[in-house]
Amino acid sequence: MPIFDIIAFDADDTLWHSERLYVEAQTQFTQLLTHYHDPDWINDRLYQTEMQNIQQFGYGVKAFTLSMIETAIELTEGRITGADIRTIMNLGKKMLSAEVELLDSVRDSLAKLATHYPLMVITKGDLLDQERKMARSGLEEYFRHVEIVSQKSPERYARLLRQHSIEPVRFLMVGNSLKSDILPVLTVGGSAAHIPYEITWLHEVAEPPADGQTGYYPLESMGQLPDLLAKLERGA
Amino acid sequence: MPIFDIIAFDADDTLWHSERLYVEAQTQFTQLLTHYHDPDWINDRLYQTEMQNIQQFGYGVKAFTLSMIETAIELTEGRITGADIRTIMNLGKKMLSAEVELLDSVRDSLAKLATHYPLMVITKGDLLDQERKMARSGLEEYFRHVEIVSQKSPERYARLLRQHSIEPVRFLMVGNSLKSDILPVLTVGGSAAHIPYEITWLHEVAEPPADGQTGYYPLESMGQLPDLLAKLERGA
Repeated sequence: MPIFDIIAFDADDTLWHSERLYVEAQTQFTQLLTHYHDPDWINDRLYQTEMQNIQQFGYGVKAFTLSMIETAIELTEGRITGADIRTIMNLGKKMLSAEVELLDSVRDSLAKLATHYPLMVITKGDLLDQERKMARSGLEEYFRHVEIVSQKSPERYARLLRQHSIEPVRFLMVGNSLKSDILPVLTVGGSAAHIPYEITWLHEVAEPPADGQTGYYPLESMGQLPDLLAKLERGA
Repeated sequence: MPIFDIIAFDADDTLWHSERLYVEAQTQFTQLLTHYHDPDWINDRLYQTEMQNIQQFGYGVKAFTLSMIETAIELTEGRITGADIRTIMNLGKKMLSAEVELLDSVRDSLAKLATHYPLMVITKGDLLDQERKMARSGLEEYFRHVEIVSQKSPERYARLLRQHSIEPVRFLMVGNSLKSDILPVLTVGGSAAHIPYEITWLHEVAEPPADGQTGYYPLESMGQLPDLLAKLERGA
């Protein structure tokens, strides 16, 4: 017996690699500014700029690119050259056209789960970039709905569940971010399976739920998800 | 008798002023580069850059800002200063925080129509920016749904109508862009009321439908919309 009416997945760093593209770009960014400052200081200032801009720019590659440009101008007191800014712009464009690389066992697990459950995606970021990655991923066929949101707060999840007429107790969210995919879903009474990614962006760092919290399922990889569902269906 | 199941509205330049923010920013942008080139040439090159980037960047202020920066670097052969690029970045930020100014008779017309019809918004652009403008507009209460899409093609309208279980013949779209709001809706068998805005972005220019095309209603202002509906309801 299916114990959920729908299973929702985060996309970046849950279905496919994403954060490492940011890390690679940021490494090249710090190298570009290496005459001016040391990498730790540059990374620190970039993060501060991103946080200052997040209310206006939101998440995603365009926001990140604009924040890199702004940080470069600030840290060089305006001495950065047009050519260097073009290089930063190209780091962003390279991210937007990067190949979509699926995480291990994602396709197999989705194929198994899709035979028993309606699946959906709930992701934040740039609307167009997320749509294009979804199309390139080859995973579209598994998902009944794709929801791209500007933030993942408990209120936003509650609204999505209402829109799709899903009871929170019949909803499972799967994702890599405790802050965005797990904690807000548990707050609204849903279930959440956490599959950590190899890197966590500082902004997404959060404390895990208490041991034994109802509806919280820490996993190590997407390959374990079908087994978790089978176990829950058996009432184990 | 309501003759539509839902009335959908475009947002930018249909509910509130938007294009003039782009025009203002672009005027300041050309002034900044006035030592290098004449305004027509700058505007032309900016438009070309925007069109080259649109597949990757999509629509909206962040895309526009990145294209302005790229154009400035190209047109100055990299000689633009960091301070000038900061000025361009600030043009974008100013647009993102600009006050939302409603067009004439929008609030009154929505208030009248909302008592007889479910209303929705279908807009393209940056997800976060559109959400923030909607919140600041004070119009949220009138809309049952707000859909922010990356493009307005016939396929995208058809998918939205399926998602909301709306028959095309029971759907009216209201907007300022022939290309985005009117022609694709008529293509999928819906009705469309065109209310031109005082400025049309070159990319949105299109030929109007033939005279007497079924379901096409050219209007001069939002204030005429309740009368059009009343007339259609009477079967006139």
